[in-house]
Amino acid sequence: MNIESAGESLPLLEGLRTARAMRRLKPDPVPIELIRKVCEAGTFAPSGGNRQPWQFIAVTAPERRAYIASLYRARFREYIRPAVEAALDPTYPDAKRRNMKAAIYLAEHLHEAPVHLFVAGWTRRGAPQSQALFPAIQNILLACRAVGLGASLTTAHRADGEEIDRYLGLDPVKTPSIALIPIGWPKGRFGRPTRRSIDTCFFVDAVPEQVG
Amino acid sequence: MNIESAGESLPLLEGLRTARAMRRLKPDPVPIELIRKVCEAGTFAPSGGNRQPWQFIAVTAPERRAYIASLYRARFREYIRPAVEAALDPTYPDAKRRNMKAAIYLAEHLHEAPVHLFVAGWTRRGAPQSQALFPAIQNILLACRAVGLGASLTTAHRADGEEIDRYLGLDPVKTPSIALIPIGWPKGRFGRPTRRSIDTCFFVDAVPEQVG
Repeated sequence: MNIESAGESLPLLEGLRTARAMRRLKPDPVPIELIRKVCEAGTFAPSGGNRQPWQFIAVTAPERRAYIASLYRARFREYIRPAVEAALDPTYPDAKRRNMKAAIYLAEHLHEAPVHLFVAGWTRRGAPQSQALFPAIQNILLACRAVGLGASLTTAHRADGEEIDRYLGLDPVKTPSIALIPIGWPKGRFGRPTRRSIDTCFFVDAVPEQVG
Repeated sequence: MNIESAGESLPLLEGLRTARAMRRLKPDPVPIELIRKVCEAGTFAPSGGNRQPWQFIAVTAPERRAYIASLYRARFREYIRPAVEAALDPTYPDAKRRNMKAAIYLAEHLHEAPVHLFVAGWTRRGAPQSQALFPAIQNILLACRAVGLGASLTTAHRADGEEIDRYLGLDPVKTPSIALIPIGWPKGRFGRPTRRSIDTCFFVDAVPEQVG
């Protein structure tokens, strides 16, 4: 695989429209240079005052991924899975039920994802600079799409944030991890995710009274 | 201009690397269908539980842009410009000084930007869902890059947030505006923005002690 040329041809707008969350990943390894490449794409996102408050930690060692996955799975089973399953209403649209099942799959198989990419960032006046980190995170998700890597965004690890941050060598107060992006070669196919029509949320000059 | 085919060929990774903030904009009008297109690209961003908590308000009427610009300019002159100018240290790298000057230019010329795009969103437990809105905002900035529109991200309008939200027909508590993206045809050229090297912020497995 030529890392430098990987993913360079996918058109931007097509990529934006088809970068859906890929939560079912193959356990096969991913070249670390490719992870570096998608993180580098992340650094071109804007941040206030160009402060670039990000750090990227790609966890690849199997025993380290197993530990992180064990924390994640335990929390998920305790707090999230019951709610997700209770909400698996058969009247829900297929797409919504598929998403919920994929979230359960991810929690149960996180240890298999070959890369656990954490995005951490310096805090400002005690608060994480989310508005500077999420554009970079989105760039990373898009760059994964470009090079054919499956990825999704979760913040559920924050329930064990302090423990995980220390494990990663991060100061939980100064540079907490904000997002976990499990990355690997996808089992499924990229495609347009389910979204409501732009015409339900796009307004010219002002929001009409019956909507706002 | 064919809106449907506009911008469809720019490669994703090249777009990520060259979507720099464009704050010097021509006053020439922009087709509203093109603004709708870039906002639609925004809707393909991820959001927790696929809640899609966004609303996009494209302000185009000259008198409405003049009003918003007058609020923005007054706040900027009072609170931000003095600090920016005091910080215009001649020892700063050129890129940083250029950015500061561009921010001043934007504040003084905001009324000329043909589109003031506001991104608003539903709140959750009283807080705006920033982590769901900033990926969509980044998608919009990238889609602008793809179709050749200049754009930049500012949140400075929040100083007058309540007044501006009401003016836009938004409920300042339920669906506050989070970001203002002035959009227009750019005076300058797209290009790679200044960023520190990925190797200063990319780590495998854990952050070394001397960094974290």
